[in-house]
Amino acid sequence: MMKDPLRVGKAIRAQLEHEIPRDLPLEKDFREGTNYTITDHVNELHAQLCPDKRTLGLFTSLVNHLHAFARETQPTHGEWTRAIEYLTRAGKESTEYKNELILLSDCLGLSALIDELNHPKPSGCTDGCEPGPFKTDDAPELPSGSSVASTNTAGELMYFEATVKDTKGQGVPGAKAEMWQADGDGLYDVQYPNRPEINDRARIIAEPNGHFSYRGILPVAYPIPSDGPIGDFLHALGRHPHRSSHIHFMITAPGYDDLTTALYPSHSPFLGTDPVFATKKSLVTSVTEERDPARWKAMGFSEGEVQKRGGRVWLWKYEFVLPSVEEVVELKKRHDAKVSKL
Amino acid sequence: MMKDPLRVGKAIRAQLEHEIPRDLPLEKDFREGTNYTITDHVNELHAQLCPDKRTLGLFTSLVNHLHAFARETQPTHGEWTRAIEYLTRAGKESTEYKNELILLSDCLGLSALIDELNHPKPSGCTDGCEPGPFKTDDAPELPSGSSVASTNTAGELMYFEATVKDTKGQGVPGAKAEMWQADGDGLYDVQYPNRPEINDRARIIAEPNGHFSYRGILPVAYPIPSDGPIGDFLHALGRHPHRSSHIHFMITAPGYDDLTTALYPSHSPFLGTDPVFATKKSLVTSVTEERDPARWKAMGFSEGEVQKRGGRVWLWKYEFVLPSVEEVVELKKRHDAKVSKL
Repeated sequence: MMKDPLRVGKAIRAQLEHEIPRDLPLEKDFREGTNYTITDHVNELHAQLCPDKRTLGLFTSLVNHLHAFARETQPTHGEWTRAIEYLTRAGKESTEYKNELILLSDCLGLSALIDELNHPKPSGCTDGCEPGPFKTDDAPELPSGSSVASTNTAGELMYFEATVKDTKGQGVPGAKAEMWQADGDGLYDVQYPNRPEINDRARIIAEPNGHFSYRGILPVAYPIPSDGPIGDFLHALGRHPHRSSHIHFMITAPGYDDLTTALYPSHSPFLGTDPVFATKKSLVTSVTEERDPARWKAMGFSEGEVQKRGGRVWLWKYEFVLPSVEEVVELKKRHDAKVSKL
Repeated sequence: MMKDPLRVGKAIRAQLEHEIPRDLPLEKDFREGTNYTITDHVNELHAQLCPDKRTLGLFTSLVNHLHAFARETQPTHGEWTRAIEYLTRAGKESTEYKNELILLSDCLGLSALIDELNHPKPSGCTDGCEPGPFKTDDAPELPSGSSVASTNTAGELMYFEATVKDTKGQGVPGAKAEMWQADGDGLYDVQYPNRPEINDRARIIAEPNGHFSYRGILPVAYPIPSDGPIGDFLHALGRHPHRSSHIHFMITAPGYDDLTTALYPSHSPFLGTDPVFATKKSLVTSVTEERDPARWKAMGFSEGEVQKRGGRVWLWKYEFVLPSVEEVVELKKRHDAKVSKL
């Protein structure tokens, strides 16, 4: 025992040969209802020991908010146990293609908030949203006016046209619009077994005035995966897993801030109860029916093709407004000033 | 397509045959810097759909605090990804005997806080702390004065004596004190391969005046498991995993509130940096050396036994103060009044 004046066990002794951890005097007693609670104690410990300023800022805020949550809601031991079990299960049931903790962050509105905080937009610019799990790296680059859907794709015909503009209303030159979407069965190409073809996705090269269009299929609504823990979460809150119909876009142009977003047709159900909170009102637009064969032809559809698919084409128009890099740098400076106060 | 006027995909159609989820009008646009943010939107949705008041209260507070945390700290996408990956890994690496999410809750001070909130103590009562993972159901019931350590147990000899009192200073009749502790190598009996014997744990029956004692081994410090995600967390914050030396107690007596706690000798290292924030100052007491053979005998040790183990016995004394059930009911009423406001 003389070898162990600190009275630490074997496991610690093995580590102490390399490093003696710093101890601090236990100066104050921490107790609820006093001027010095466990929250103060945890944060004071971190303030004295944490080697990195950003880590300290993140965890000080996290400890403050988690502890405030506990004081506000007074969780029972049973509720705490269920929360631990839920998070453990969410980790265990996550796979490479379906992460339950990302879904939880999405369904708490946290992912959308962090996306918005990271992409401040000057007034009048198109709102962003998260890209979601179905973006791939292999979308073909196609000229404006191309078809993005193969002939066998399930669904109704759609013609999408848009202009990419700056905050002054001028068309932006050099824009590319990557789009990816579900088909008329609510499935992305990557969700079909063995992914028979690249479909319903492309990198469209806009015209020099910022205008671009493509022919494709009207997307329909589909659910997020709800067979695991996130389904239980949504059920407990009275919510459903169904996302509104949408097309994803990632718009880029030299000198402008990248825009990742999605557009929603106003006819879609679930706009008011979207599980991941991506249906910003500014991204919802009406889609109209085009029944004029002359217009079908101008869009690039053959009359036979349209007649075979119900005798109409859905026409979807939008104006994307991108901030310049300078405009965003200016806004971010203000945000960073807030963060550096931590 | 006529069959699908809502334009929802196959996966949703299959579910809609059973139930049409309620949609809400998308009345307001949510955006940072306006009067209606995503936080308002999420909480309003839950307020309209959640079928259970307590669930709504818990998640409204959680959403408010997680969103406030994000606004305060402005996490980058990279930081958010690391947090998701961390929690996923914590779930995946958890086992029946080592739950990384419990450890994370412990090391953020959250477990200790929730324990304290659930066990409000009138002033003067002994503070509580969590039982930890090493309590078993098979501790033998022994009369006061018994030995709890087998002859081969590693460590220095200790005599522990205490009285269980009420808030008026009177000894409490009918008390039982379950104790469990590590030995002189920092290991609990259950940590030895195949657990050769029940050791260093017992349910001691106190005398009618509340006094009890036992003979055993001075516990030494040991680390919490730090080979997984919690080790990375502690390292990032400049902290170590070593718990101070301690004895766990669970004291029960008819008519009194159960007390789960632990006591710490003032000679222990790591009192100021305990990883799970259980070293409340009121639980730390000095332990003295007894070198008088007459006293050893009175304690129940043989002189030969003591001489073989370094020629001294450590004497540890404490007074446990338990609130009556009535006193706690009164305090809890006040706490519940707070919670019901949610």
